[in-house]
Amino acid sequence: MDQEIDFRKMRGLVPAIVQDVATGEVLMLGFMNHEACERTFSTGFVTFFSRTRNQLWTKGETSGNRLKLVAAATDCDRDTLLLQVEVEGAGLVCHEGKRSCFAQSLSGSEIKKGSADAGRVRS
Amino acid sequence: MDQEIDFRKMRGLVPAIVQDVATGEVLMLGFMNHEACERTFSTGFVTFFSRTRNQLWTKGETSGNRLKLVAAATDCDRDTLLLQVEVEGAGLVCHEGKRSCFAQSLSGSEIKKGSADAGRVRS
Repeated sequence: MDQEIDFRKMRGLVPAIVQDVATGEVLMLGFMNHEACERTFSTGFVTFFSRTRNQLWTKGETSGNRLKLVAAATDCDRDTLLLQVEVEGAGLVCHEGKRSCFAQSLSGSEIKKGSADAGRVRS
Repeated sequence: MDQEIDFRKMRGLVPAIVQDVATGEVLMLGFMNHEACERTFSTGFVTFFSRTRNQLWTKGETSGNRLKLVAAATDCDRDTLLLQVEVEGAGLVCHEGKRSCFAQSLSGSEIKKGSADAGRVRS
């Protein structure tokens, strides 16, 4: 099987979805360049490329909540990664002290209210 | 709660992860601009912005496998969406005739072999 990853659509980056392998919960999304991919697979711990800091960062390196890679897949057009992990330490992936970064529910009415603002969705 | 979505980091787009609400399976990832978000929440069916075709597309519009929005959340920095859905029709989200687009497993050794190729990961 051809194992290319297509980094071209995002100028050297691909989005990487992180999912808890035991529960199926989606924990976070980060971006990876080629080097971050390599480091993730060679060390077995998830390393992203930070777009704001312009450098690699191994998730949980300081907090202890590292993401241990259990399985990985790419999608049909090979421009996105799905990483299934076990979370080390206290298991709190989000820097706000929660298991998942996706802690803020959105409702349709809240989104629709933002339609007058061209740049953002606002309630 | 402030309901802004931050479209600035990707010049008007945010990644949107699609997850099966019943099984937790991650089905695909697409991108949304403000208009795609609005259409998704106003119609209740997931609409993306196609980067390659430069237009909105309602997933499953022709195949019948539309993605019915059940719940939505954003993450701590509000630049990614998580959409939980029920898949209509035959339930095959991927255009290759599979339930999920993430059907191609990657192994560490396969990724590592690609290190000589600066632009891509290749086995």
